[in-house]
Amino acid sequence: MSSWVSADQDSGFTLNNLPYGVYSVGNSPRHVGVAVGQHVLDLHVLAREHVLDGLGFDATTLLEPTLNKFASLGKHAHRALRSFLQELLKPETSLNLTLKDNQPLKGLALVEQKDVVLHLPMDIGDYTDFFVGPHHACAKLLKSTGDKFAPNFMNMPLGYHGRASSVVVSGTPVYRPNGQVSLEGAQTLSKCQQLDFEVEFAAFIGRGNQHGTSIGVNEAEDHIFGVVLMNDWSARDIQFAESTPLGPFNGKNFCTTISPWIVPLEALEPFRTAPMHPVGRESHLDNGYADHHQGPWLPYLTQDREDTVYDIPVDARIQVNSETYHAVRCNTKNVAFSFAQMVAHHTVGGCPMRPGDLLGTGTLSGATREEVGCLLEVSQHGTQPYEMGAIGSTGGKMQRCYLEDGDRVSFSAQATRPGSDPVNLGTCQGQVVASP
Amino acid sequence: MSSWVSADQDSGFTLNNLPYGVYSVGNSPRHVGVAVGQHVLDLHVLAREHVLDGLGFDATTLLEPTLNKFASLGKHAHRALRSFLQELLKPETSLNLTLKDNQPLKGLALVEQKDVVLHLPMDIGDYTDFFVGPHHACAKLLKSTGDKFAPNFMNMPLGYHGRASSVVVSGTPVYRPNGQVSLEGAQTLSKCQQLDFEVEFAAFIGRGNQHGTSIGVNEAEDHIFGVVLMNDWSARDIQFAESTPLGPFNGKNFCTTISPWIVPLEALEPFRTAPMHPVGRESHLDNGYADHHQGPWLPYLTQDREDTVYDIPVDARIQVNSETYHAVRCNTKNVAFSFAQMVAHHTVGGCPMRPGDLLGTGTLSGATREEVGCLLEVSQHGTQPYEMGAIGSTGGKMQRCYLEDGDRVSFSAQATRPGSDPVNLGTCQGQVVASP
Repeated sequence: MSSWVSADQDSGFTLNNLPYGVYSVGNSPRHVGVAVGQHVLDLHVLAREHVLDGLGFDATTLLEPTLNKFASLGKHAHRALRSFLQELLKPETSLNLTLKDNQPLKGLALVEQKDVVLHLPMDIGDYTDFFVGPHHACAKLLKSTGDKFAPNFMNMPLGYHGRASSVVVSGTPVYRPNGQVSLEGAQTLSKCQQLDFEVEFAAFIGRGNQHGTSIGVNEAEDHIFGVVLMNDWSARDIQFAESTPLGPFNGKNFCTTISPWIVPLEALEPFRTAPMHPVGRESHLDNGYADHHQGPWLPYLTQDREDTVYDIPVDARIQVNSETYHAVRCNTKNVAFSFAQMVAHHTVGGCPMRPGDLLGTGTLSGATREEVGCLLEVSQHGTQPYEMGAIGSTGGKMQRCYLEDGDRVSFSAQATRPGSDPVNLGTCQGQVVASP
Repeated sequence: MSSWVSADQDSGFTLNNLPYGVYSVGNSPRHVGVAVGQHVLDLHVLAREHVLDGLGFDATTLLEPTLNKFASLGKHAHRALRSFLQELLKPETSLNLTLKDNQPLKGLALVEQKDVVLHLPMDIGDYTDFFVGPHHACAKLLKSTGDKFAPNFMNMPLGYHGRASSVVVSGTPVYRPNGQVSLEGAQTLSKCQQLDFEVEFAAFIGRGNQHGTSIGVNEAEDHIFGVVLMNDWSARDIQFAESTPLGPFNGKNFCTTISPWIVPLEALEPFRTAPMHPVGRESHLDNGYADHHQGPWLPYLTQDREDTVYDIPVDARIQVNSETYHAVRCNTKNVAFSFAQMVAHHTVGGCPMRPGDLLGTGTLSGATREEVGCLLEVSQHGTQPYEMGAIGSTGGKMQRCYLEDGDRVSFSAQATRPGSDPVNLGTCQGQVVASP
């Protein structure tokens, strides 16, 4: 679906995408907007100028500096705004009000993306990280527990509470953390020697639930405002020294980066697919995972449909000085559980979700070495340096066991399917900086 | 230190306490205030009437409906207000403005506690629960891992991220959660059969730290606004079915209750003591804990003083219908690490603390069975019913392995020391309600 705003259909920011974000220009206040082509359409301005009146939802929620209030309105509001914007931005619109021909309003409401600073799109009340990538789970668990595979991994989407205060938007520097580690049998405070990225996909909650109530698995997508890419930076040496028995803490809470544009689930409809079924010996890990059967789920986790996840390749690249290397290519379909199942499980005991809560999938590793979502796995716990080729024609090569200071890690994803517009999920990027 | 407001010195809300809270009356907006005797002194009203001008801090922070902004100002502001209030409330004050003789202002600013509803005093951005009670750790870890005691327990204050959205104020009903458990070898969704309380002490962060910086252990108390009692309600059957390898999740995130009054650290100065040293065979758990030596800590955890924790007994009671039973008596000193050490450890990798973040100690179990802080331990995993005696002269007895619907659990604490005014920490109470 093309728009008069921008001719560039390859950007992946077509009218079928229209992701939400929060931006500012210079010292001006933060406004919410949607990405269209190379531009941002300012929703604050449209709401203020009463362009969004009469759509059946409270448009003053778009005057806020974050998307929390608008997201809390639920799907009827999000769909009403999305339909209206698609009509407004079409080359031939049936609307009486045409932004296209209203020069003063256009001057206020359309800003070039290259001129804006993007911010965290929502206030994140709670951040939960799941662990639903079977290949990643295999690699990590089998390494740490010999050959035992935790049976609860197959019965429920396992998760842990993360640190909301350390979630940052793409582009924020990532300070290499200090932490307590075991070196040659002695405890010491050291800067992290095993800094890693983790390729993840994450969902923002829109409408929440009351404390003491749960969200049914077949209604759960109505509570998801949209999705982003996420890098769950991990300090492996700190993580391994602390994780028994309470799980990761300082090894994960120093930084988590998300992409700035929240892509609505509606934009991803064409890319639906089924979640991962048990994998067998084709895995790069000869781990007998196929012996562990999956499902049928308990009723509270059983969805009416099978295509509950999304087929979107995610590229990870590492830039060192002026050269950029292809690291790995994961896929958001490399999960054993859907976001809807995560929401249903998270709330089954009455835990309240609030607008802006963030749920991550865990690392999206696939079956082969080039599809692995973190250096821990791909370098076999730092024992086998992983070689990456430069992008372009230089023929350069680089090896990494773990990240070095100055490395700029970026994830990007473009959903494509014959007959559908491509949908860009934006970029999730951060540069490793030495400890202060 | 007595006040003209209230003659009742036994309440523990003397001028040496002055804890902060948020209250409302009827449908009026929420105001911040301090407890004095049987009253609340309304700080919103005092700020609005310019009574607090010229004290060297921004008194408009007290017009907010939570304490976050005021807490973020740091100790100079908290101490300035505390000194001023002590002067204002003394029987013979040297201040020109005397609230005592100003009937109109007194009518606005003093409200009886019995007439108010108390709310969560701060917006909680992140909630972290630690696990620094050595007796509790022994009981839980030795049960689950045979005879291995996790060595990192002795090297650092172990913690995990909890769920901020499920923290509620005293008096909020506690819905018995549903969850996935293993029954006779099969997974099933069941209402929790092993609902438990955990007696904890918790600290609210005042001034935070920037992302990428850390808080030194000897400056950490300056970042703590004050303390509350906390009940970290736990669904043991759900917790045990899910906790490997990522730690507790749904077994803990259905409800956490805190007492409503935040007691400033300044009020607890007279009750300082040293943290727990390794315990030996005197423990009710014959666990060889004494074999595990403690400290010296790494420098980032080493405090300049030894009296880094507080000696305050905490009583847990269970009310069933009209009868109240004495359950256990713990103590806030039953910890191996101080709040300052928790803050230093939590931020050593650059994790940002924000005003309103909450840090819990974990269960405050002592050495004997009557000092244990949860039913899991006292009933030996539900195998030995624990008998409690009624308070008063009825001679009634009650047994519990785990909590039943209708049980009202309340914690209360009064710090006492010869020569010091008692300091009341308020009440942390919740009634168990059947699953909806």
